[in-house]
Amino acid sequence: MNRIIHLKNRPEGTPQLDDFEFIEEEKPVAGDGEILLKSKFVSVDPYLRGRMRDQKSYVEPFRLNEPVESGIIAEIVESNNDNFKKGDFVNGMLQWKEFQTSTGKGLNKVDPEKASLSAYLGVLGLTGLTAYISLEHIGNLKNGETLLVSGASGAVGSTVGQIGKIKGCHVVGIAGTDEKLKLMKDTFGFDKGINYKTTDDMKKAIAEACPEGVDVYFDNVGGEILDAAMQNINENGRVINCGAISLYNKTEVPMGPRYEGIMVKKTVLMQGFLVRQHAKEFGPATKQLAEWLNEGKLTYEETIVEGFENIPQAFLDLFNGKNKGKMVVKI
Amino acid sequence: MNRIIHLKNRPEGTPQLDDFEFIEEEKPVAGDGEILLKSKFVSVDPYLRGRMRDQKSYVEPFRLNEPVESGIIAEIVESNNDNFKKGDFVNGMLQWKEFQTSTGKGLNKVDPEKASLSAYLGVLGLTGLTAYISLEHIGNLKNGETLLVSGASGAVGSTVGQIGKIKGCHVVGIAGTDEKLKLMKDTFGFDKGINYKTTDDMKKAIAEACPEGVDVYFDNVGGEILDAAMQNINENGRVINCGAISLYNKTEVPMGPRYEGIMVKKTVLMQGFLVRQHAKEFGPATKQLAEWLNEGKLTYEETIVEGFENIPQAFLDLFNGKNKGKMVVKI
Repeated sequence: MNRIIHLKNRPEGTPQLDDFEFIEEEKPVAGDGEILLKSKFVSVDPYLRGRMRDQKSYVEPFRLNEPVESGIIAEIVESNNDNFKKGDFVNGMLQWKEFQTSTGKGLNKVDPEKASLSAYLGVLGLTGLTAYISLEHIGNLKNGETLLVSGASGAVGSTVGQIGKIKGCHVVGIAGTDEKLKLMKDTFGFDKGINYKTTDDMKKAIAEACPEGVDVYFDNVGGEILDAAMQNINENGRVINCGAISLYNKTEVPMGPRYEGIMVKKTVLMQGFLVRQHAKEFGPATKQLAEWLNEGKLTYEETIVEGFENIPQAFLDLFNGKNKGKMVVKI
Repeated sequence: MNRIIHLKNRPEGTPQLDDFEFIEEEKPVAGDGEILLKSKFVSVDPYLRGRMRDQKSYVEPFRLNEPVESGIIAEIVESNNDNFKKGDFVNGMLQWKEFQTSTGKGLNKVDPEKASLSAYLGVLGLTGLTAYISLEHIGNLKNGETLLVSGASGAVGSTVGQIGKIKGCHVVGIAGTDEKLKLMKDTFGFDKGINYKTTDDMKKAIAEACPEGVDVYFDNVGGEILDAAMQNINENGRVINCGAISLYNKTEVPMGPRYEGIMVKKTVLMQGFLVRQHAKEFGPATKQLAEWLNEGKLTYEETIVEGFENIPQAFLDLFNGKNKGKMVVKI
């Protein structure tokens, strides 16, 4: 039999386990020109929450009573397609199914010799690409500048901070536990860390950690942490809006202090970033990331949850900050 | 005697006439290498409000009990400087004085034969340059796109809208009286106008006037009009934060709906713009504006108030929307 995870309800506020439903069906068979894939590693990501809304966005919303999809590393267990052979591993946007068939369209082969399979969902996948390409396009980091990162121990944030160090920046990270702060400094080489959960005055804490102000703020969270960063932004500062996890589960329109005064006065650049719009740059960007990885300039942390049945819980745990680094489910 | 206008108090909220003080002193004499200037046209601009705060910004705050300064066209009435001769007209950041001396530094000669003197404070001055250069850098208008402009009948806004038409855009303006709307359409060639004072639902009004959404929003006002524009912004939309006149006189931190969700979802670019950072481009930009002016593709409106003694009131009237186009005081 083949297990499948459907989206059963559109979550209201924080997603719940019963928004998902496990279905069983016959194990599929590869048709003519097709391959049969066995899921090995499933990526769970905060942005999936957006696709659970019935709302036009940059990707189509998930349909109710159909499988959720995300980045998955799969093994080819049958092949009727000359471009793929049994035993190959591929990376692509695939459905939350133990087994599925594919024509191979949109799948990229990955080499388990060059890096661990799960790394292709993280530092060498969309998360690493998000960090690298957004910093190239919007961050435009200069040697000696100050880079502030929220969600700093997470998959994207930790890569952003390390690239900041490679570029010669003063790098300050914001996270929600002292353990994460330690990880940021000891493993990822951040200069300073701020625990937003134990800090009353984030504006002041950022000012102290960034004595020359903030040149680039990489924002994974939005909300009050963004407010505090904006109060410390330098002239010609850049803000990369990569995520707004603090808002994703809100059911009312969140309010906050208006930024337009600061935008004008400090000539700030603020820009939303979606890595999918930059597919043409994936090749050279992955090459650079792999090079840094091999040179030991870049490292990564991952939280690997085991078992297909734990995919929904792993997704929910993202919103409780239970992951360190990239959250991946191993099947 | 020589009349001078000092900043007497830092305004709280809306500036008042008694925040300014008229002083008389001896008429100055041009020293060695200096010129004596007689003010002819004085520019009053919303951004001056910012300099009245005791707060670090992109330019130094005005000092109390010292003259206010702004863009001024002056006639040279005495010259001990070989670079300038009596009867020449110059443009520069000068003090609110009937007469003042200068070494000539930072002054540019203007030709009264090529355009009216006051145009050098408007369409051929910082206001026209603001419109042109910000659209080049941030707006990046493409033929067929929709450009929305607030403060649309004002000096900058009316030029922005006309450049939008030159670039082949659908141009929609927002202003506060039906008379201004008529001006926008009849004189400046905007496609549609929205009177924000008589419109209950700005989000809906923008949606109707911009059936294909908003690609570029040029914001002079901030606040709720920016909110409504953001609710209609297209994917990869650009927002030029040129001013936030709706906030300048606020004494508390203004609150509004958070934008970070839209920024991410629609990959919006939002950027503050200050024309002073682009001085290197003034030459070619002025040339292009003058060309369009001579070709009849660009026109301008100005409100000319007469009399040195009316400078403070003319400044205050900016916040009541009493000007059509560039507000200038003729001495």
